[in-house]
Amino acid sequence: MKEKKSIVILGAGFGGAYTAMYLEKHLKRSKDAFEIVLVNRENYFVFQPMLAEVVGGSLGILDTINPLRKLLPNTNLFIREVDSIDIEKKQITLSPKYSHSYKELNYDHLVLALGTVTDFRGLAGLHEHALPFKNLADSIVIRNQVIEVLESAACEEDPKLKEKLLTFVVGGGGFSGTEVVAEVNDLVRNLVKHYPSIDPKQVRVILIHSKDRLMERELGESLSHYAGKLLQKRGVEIRFNTHLISATPEEALLDSGEKIGSKTIISTVPSSPNPLLETLPLHLERGKIVTDSGMQVEGESDLWALGDCAAIPNLEGKGICPPTAQFAIREAKILAHNIASSIIGGEKKEFRFKALGMMGALGHHSAVAELFGRFKFSGILAWILWRMIYWMKLPGTGRKLKVALTWILDTMIPIEAVQIKMTPTQGIAQLHFEPGEVIFHEGDVGDYLYIIVTGEVEVFTTKDGEEKMIAKLGKGEYFGEMALLNQRSRSATVRCLEPVDILGLKKSDFGMLISNFKELKKDFEETEKTRKKEIN
Amino acid sequence: MKEKKSIVILGAGFGGAYTAMYLEKHLKRSKDAFEIVLVNRENYFVFQPMLAEVVGGSLGILDTINPLRKLLPNTNLFIREVDSIDIEKKQITLSPKYSHSYKELNYDHLVLALGTVTDFRGLAGLHEHALPFKNLADSIVIRNQVIEVLESAACEEDPKLKEKLLTFVVGGGGFSGTEVVAEVNDLVRNLVKHYPSIDPKQVRVILIHSKDRLMERELGESLSHYAGKLLQKRGVEIRFNTHLISATPEEALLDSGEKIGSKTIISTVPSSPNPLLETLPLHLERGKIVTDSGMQVEGESDLWALGDCAAIPNLEGKGICPPTAQFAIREAKILAHNIASSIIGGEKKEFRFKALGMMGALGHHSAVAELFGRFKFSGILAWILWRMIYWMKLPGTGRKLKVALTWILDTMIPIEAVQIKMTPTQGIAQLHFEPGEVIFHEGDVGDYLYIIVTGEVEVFTTKDGEEKMIAKLGKGEYFGEMALLNQRSRSATVRCLEPVDILGLKKSDFGMLISNFKELKKDFEETEKTRKKEIN
Repeated sequence: MKEKKSIVILGAGFGGAYTAMYLEKHLKRSKDAFEIVLVNRENYFVFQPMLAEVVGGSLGILDTINPLRKLLPNTNLFIREVDSIDIEKKQITLSPKYSHSYKELNYDHLVLALGTVTDFRGLAGLHEHALPFKNLADSIVIRNQVIEVLESAACEEDPKLKEKLLTFVVGGGGFSGTEVVAEVNDLVRNLVKHYPSIDPKQVRVILIHSKDRLMERELGESLSHYAGKLLQKRGVEIRFNTHLISATPEEALLDSGEKIGSKTIISTVPSSPNPLLETLPLHLERGKIVTDSGMQVEGESDLWALGDCAAIPNLEGKGICPPTAQFAIREAKILAHNIASSIIGGEKKEFRFKALGMMGALGHHSAVAELFGRFKFSGILAWILWRMIYWMKLPGTGRKLKVALTWILDTMIPIEAVQIKMTPTQGIAQLHFEPGEVIFHEGDVGDYLYIIVTGEVEVFTTKDGEEKMIAKLGKGEYFGEMALLNQRSRSATVRCLEPVDILGLKKSDFGMLISNFKELKKDFEETEKTRKKEIN
Repeated sequence: MKEKKSIVILGAGFGGAYTAMYLEKHLKRSKDAFEIVLVNRENYFVFQPMLAEVVGGSLGILDTINPLRKLLPNTNLFIREVDSIDIEKKQITLSPKYSHSYKELNYDHLVLALGTVTDFRGLAGLHEHALPFKNLADSIVIRNQVIEVLESAACEEDPKLKEKLLTFVVGGGGFSGTEVVAEVNDLVRNLVKHYPSIDPKQVRVILIHSKDRLMERELGESLSHYAGKLLQKRGVEIRFNTHLISATPEEALLDSGEKIGSKTIISTVPSSPNPLLETLPLHLERGKIVTDSGMQVEGESDLWALGDCAAIPNLEGKGICPPTAQFAIREAKILAHNIASSIIGGEKKEFRFKALGMMGALGHHSAVAELFGRFKFSGILAWILWRMIYWMKLPGTGRKLKVALTWILDTMIPIEAVQIKMTPTQGIAQLHFEPGEVIFHEGDVGDYLYIIVTGEVEVFTTKDGEEKMIAKLGKGEYFGEMALLNQRSRSATVRCLEPVDILGLKKSDFGMLISNFKELKKDFEETEKTRKKEIN
């Protein structure tokens, strides 16, 4: 008897999860020919196209996800982070969790389905101050943030701050950006009715898009314009031909020079392939793994790739297959067949598939859809179509039932502004400020200690309207410790001279560190003495 | 026209939220006589008695909560933390959130409904390593933790660690402890079926209770024994007459001397009144505010208290009113009447109420109930009663409908092991270890830098089975930096000589600090040089 082959799949998005599902079917027919191993960070499969509905609250938090163990009863699951991939040894290393050692997995066939990651490199402050929209946790965070700023605006008296709290900026007008801005807009405008101290007219929702029409890659001109007009009618301001280039705790910066004061900046772009791929000695095209039309990696008989992280030739079109769920599911079927064939024996297949069409939800019972390149729908008809098609694709009968019920209830029960606060002390915060921005004012409540990573700030006090310069501080220097050590309010103002990146250490964490860490305490006390003299 | 009086309520548990609801009714009859202000940390009301069901997954995360703005349309809500209370100035100060200054509220009448807080003072390591069970976030954290350890156990090869991962300890056999252990037990034993690599017999669920029977304060002997027997039959081990006295990352310590290796320790005791109360110049009894039978604070005509934080004489029994939802709701009605009377004019009422009975859910379609001191129920009958009574008390028709549907679906769709990972980098972790415990072993993966808060540790390497002592470290000293700076694995073992409290700084956070913080970097580099010599 020949030995059992091991197929290891990395990632459980549409590509990875469906590959495992199709492999389980092959496994039934050819018992014990191979084992299926799936490595993923979460123990559930997320139905990505519905995530925006979680933001808007039309779907419950758990309605978009499916436990992998239930979907894949015959797959060996590892809920871990992948630390490294060794193609020569045919070995995967998983990061430790409760244990203190790495875990190694050997494979005969490896399927790379690692998808993409949000990548804010090169965009100052986005990593720190923009909310990504990619996975389930992101959706929940965005929803919570929307409710949090509304609650804060409700009891805010400073009109400037109130304006910032009520301004919502979304970067990116592709599919997910459009869907998320539609949901956020509906959510805010619905909820604000319950806040008597907020004038609904103060709410601004702004979409920043780099092209001259929305979802231009996926939709024809007429539907694209329909979507834009519809959002505008509902109160979304759209800035076309503009990029979001930087974010600070106070505002969003556009390449047009415009600054939009906002406490809620959401960015759906850009994403790039998983950085693990760059460590592999493989031919990459724009970061994606190049495969043949059977999804086998060039020159590697035991290596396969699919989904967003793969560049698969599109035999029914030009270029490579688009990174959509529609394609990933079909790719998975062929890929599973090809791997099974290479183990059990059989013909390999080529992947060919013509997109059925495209659909995008626009919130509030409307959507746009384009099917078979000919039929175009918009409005409530497209929306019903959108729900029906995705509902049919939802894996699991229980899940289908729950989602259907939630949708029915949704038509009866209004949206509720309930915020789940789960975030514990966040430890060290990374902050980005633009030149001229004030990090804190004299007299503010002291809540953070700051350490400068890059850039320069000036420290000054104001007396009778005149600024008295105290110091300039640069990389590696810290400030803000005096308010934490002694008093409640800041004794000086700190303003940025350049773009500044800063680490902020929370008052409580700072307290723990300072009272226990000899070296640190000494340093701080000495600095404090000197600085006190400078101010007085 | 006389000026509008301001009634400020602190806290929106059963006491505070219902006081506001009843006051809104009075407000309708006497328009503009007063305004109602409610301050709470969350913008929702939690239906506490059903929280255990969230742990078990029989209720959705949002099914137990109700938005305050919907419940209380005519109340002025402030979703903020209370910073301080000044009784002389009749002023409340709220902590800043987005703004950098405190917010002050003046009151004519103040209602203290601050409830209790979990208080692990005096119990070493519980704050750091035990999960409290008190609010919604706690329920979600417990549920996530159960799923997390199951996932880790599924791919763990070290039998000792696997045992710890599959052992669940709950401290406290009162109402909430019993309910939560029942739900955790059901959850784990249900889910474990989906993990082929875990033998269900390896799962241990242990309840630690200080008395000789469960829920002894609320239930008679026969029901109490019924509950204990039922849990035992379902696989819960119960340690009677024992206290949980300490917790470490590796085990729970009992006062019997027993050590239970576990990665999941839940504690429902002890709770104590909100620390804000201690700052007030009022007569406290066991931390609770003493009031008359009209819930007015002794000698203060504008100060009222109810619920868990108040000591209200029990005119229908002995001692003070018990801290249950049943009482709080009735207290709120009388309190609202009394405040309204003191503003509009009218007779004050005294609070008198005899408990209707007690009910406790035991998970898996069973419960215990004792009504009017005479009727006793157990099993499925009590469980149906439990659900019906609480369901009727749920505020809001929409909520009622959703919960009913969830319960119906629940009988059809099995529980799902879906874990929502939301916790970002936790920054600085606080850890507690007992003497003899190893913080890390030579060769382990380095993931944290440690700073000693109290206690002493020894550092040693092992060669050919012999231990070579390198150093002893104490308060304010740090270790673990070498593995982070240079290598992947620890170059020595660190073991505790006494009970040790430690701060752990995550690898990523440490990296950020060290590379940006001049002083720190210098310190670490010097220490490292010295230590390297010592090891070689």
